[in-house]
Amino acid sequence: MLTKNQIKLITSLDQKKFRNQHQLFVVEGKKGIAEFLNSTFELYHLFATEPTFKVNDEKFTLITESELKKISKLKTPNTALALFKIPNTKPVDESKLILALDDVRDPGNLGTIIRLCDWFGIKDLVCSNATVDCYNSKVVQATMGSLTRVNVSYLDLEVFLKAHKNDVFGAFMEGKNVYEQMLPDKGVIVLGNEANGISATIETFVNTRISIPRFGNLQATESLNVATATAILLSEFKRGSTEK
Amino acid sequence: MLTKNQIKLITSLDQKKFRNQHQLFVVEGKKGIAEFLNSTFELYHLFATEPTFKVNDEKFTLITESELKKISKLKTPNTALALFKIPNTKPVDESKLILALDDVRDPGNLGTIIRLCDWFGIKDLVCSNATVDCYNSKVVQATMGSLTRVNVSYLDLEVFLKAHKNDVFGAFMEGKNVYEQMLPDKGVIVLGNEANGISATIETFVNTRISIPRFGNLQATESLNVATATAILLSEFKRGSTEK
Repeated sequence: MLTKNQIKLITSLDQKKFRNQHQLFVVEGKKGIAEFLNSTFELYHLFATEPTFKVNDEKFTLITESELKKISKLKTPNTALALFKIPNTKPVDESKLILALDDVRDPGNLGTIIRLCDWFGIKDLVCSNATVDCYNSKVVQATMGSLTRVNVSYLDLEVFLKAHKNDVFGAFMEGKNVYEQMLPDKGVIVLGNEANGISATIETFVNTRISIPRFGNLQATESLNVATATAILLSEFKRGSTEK
Repeated sequence: MLTKNQIKLITSLDQKKFRNQHQLFVVEGKKGIAEFLNSTFELYHLFATEPTFKVNDEKFTLITESELKKISKLKTPNTALALFKIPNTKPVDESKLILALDDVRDPGNLGTIIRLCDWFGIKDLVCSNATVDCYNSKVVQATMGSLTRVNVSYLDLEVFLKAHKNDVFGAFMEGKNVYEQMLPDKGVIVLGNEANGISATIETFVNTRISIPRFGNLQATESLNVATATAILLSEFKRGSTEK
């Protein structure tokens, strides 16, 4: 049975302010919750319509389907909703390839990008402070559990890039053809905001401007979506490592 | 001023049944409408809060913002909504590289894929009949005008592939490493449904199973999203043509 205070707490976590205050975020659905339970993330509380997972009694509340509907953000709630603690971010490993986002705003895009980092073995995703929060429930849903395996750091991107020792690549509409570049196994790849691309301030830290060539029609779509551009760039940076 | 019949017609176009019956679909927003007006698509009627576009008087209705809200599917309607006629599909050019979708269901995914076809110069996208309709308003919005430059055909994919003369590549979780394959400039690349991949029937027509290797963590995300997988595969098939 859900208490009013529990409903109030869960609902408040829609807002970044309250996620930060309580240091908690929401994961919905059995599959996602299983991934977080099997990771280093710490469970705060589990609400479910059936006792699917083995968790301490004091961390579990059996609820009805109509109670789940009250707290769920999904159109078709999937038996369970859990609150996990927001972990401390680990230090960024600057000796590896790092992906950096300059103000990506769409939760679906960030979720897809975190999933891509996981697939391509990118351990560190660094985000400008204005990038959408990775503990936003839409992002968490879109990552399909990948958030448990990618270290997402929010920081002042300008300060981070100023101190970074390796090459900084930036994705632009005009730049060197990414297919013709020697791409290293360390450094930073920066992708910009959906509408405005990489900001002028961050652009000054880019050593190499790279671009995904457009084929055929010059009238073609004005740009690729930031998540599909990320897919292609990570594939290009990583494909070499299988050929070695 | 909007008539009741106009509202009824526009609202009915949310459903594929009525889009087929009237052979009309909806485009919203100035930018998208401009792309369709500049294409071979035929305008049926334009509704706008200001006379932005030069169109015949009998095809234009000046409406108020509150009228636009009534007919718009967007959270923040953007001054104009137009009805265009659904064109006849052109015959598929089988001498080129073709993308085929086996029951892709998510409108956002199809929209992104059409945009990718446009970027990579893929002229023909063939879709199984159960694939989401490309004239669904969410798809049209997501294509950002690319729908005007890609010929999307709905057909019995089994019949199409049976008759196809060139190689048929299928994207699978297990298959030949796409980075190590010789990829031709003609043939068909098949991508499957979001949850189930390529169906057993369609699989029998695949000559070459290809796969995007996973890097690092074996625990990583179970699969790539179909739109990001499409991005990477089209990039791989096309990148060679810039190196020649």
